[in-house]
Amino acid sequence: MKLKLFVSLILLTTCFAAFGQEKQNVAAGEKGLIKVSVMYPYAEGKTFNMEYYETKHMPMVAGFLGSNLIKYTIEKGLASGIPNQPLPFMAIGTFYVKSITDYQAAIGPNRDAIRADFQNYTNITPVILVSEVTK
Amino acid sequence: MKLKLFVSLILLTTCFAAFGQEKQNVAAGEKGLIKVSVMYPYAEGKTFNMEYYETKHMPMVAGFLGSNLIKYTIEKGLASGIPNQPLPFMAIGTFYVKSITDYQAAIGPNRDAIRADFQNYTNITPVILVSEVTK
Repeated sequence: MKLKLFVSLILLTTCFAAFGQEKQNVAAGEKGLIKVSVMYPYAEGKTFNMEYYETKHMPMVAGFLGSNLIKYTIEKGLASGIPNQPLPFMAIGTFYVKSITDYQAAIGPNRDAIRADFQNYTNITPVILVSEVTK
Repeated sequence: MKLKLFVSLILLTTCFAAFGQEKQNVAAGEKGLIKVSVMYPYAEGKTFNMEYYETKHMPMVAGFLGSNLIKYTIEKGLASGIPNQPLPFMAIGTFYVKSITDYQAAIGPNRDAIRADFQNYTNITPVILVSEVTK
């Protein structure tokens, strides 16, 4: 009976420790990470195939980044937040990475393949912002 | 002794349930949320006081949004991701909200106060993108 209680206590401690760790990861969030945001400006006559981008292009690029990639996100532009202004961007794909040097080293040898894939989903030349998450 | 075991089991179940819930929240991430991204384009002669923005302006605006606000982030522009291109944005502040209608209703009556605060940290006119997180 004492053994059962002992095992229960060990399990309980492990569980609380795991829960605490998870909480910490959530709290830490994205602060300090580097974002590479690939932004597709809207203009008359420009097209963007979101389905291809989500299912083919972004997974391909993400696959090049290995453990340097924390996560990636995709957003679809809906409107300008300022009345009577045109939509600024049709779509933005963002890679959250630990190191920009490692990102560049991973993308370099694959740049031609990435660029060749553009024509499969868009006729827009993207703007790319490298930024640091400060909060 | 049986009581102790029973209490241990109840605690353990509660703990695992809480841990599972937390995991789920993390996995769900930002998908489906609306982002309001306030983007400050870089140009010669433009200034941006990041410290004021982080400690005064963004907390003020976030305070207007109530429970509609899931989180907000701040990023500092470092470089263009394309060689020999100028930095696209000096800074971006982003509100992740559940409803754009509720966002607009909350910001409307405070628009003058928000705009009046701009001069305290920047001489840039921001671009605002409303987008939906799809992944």
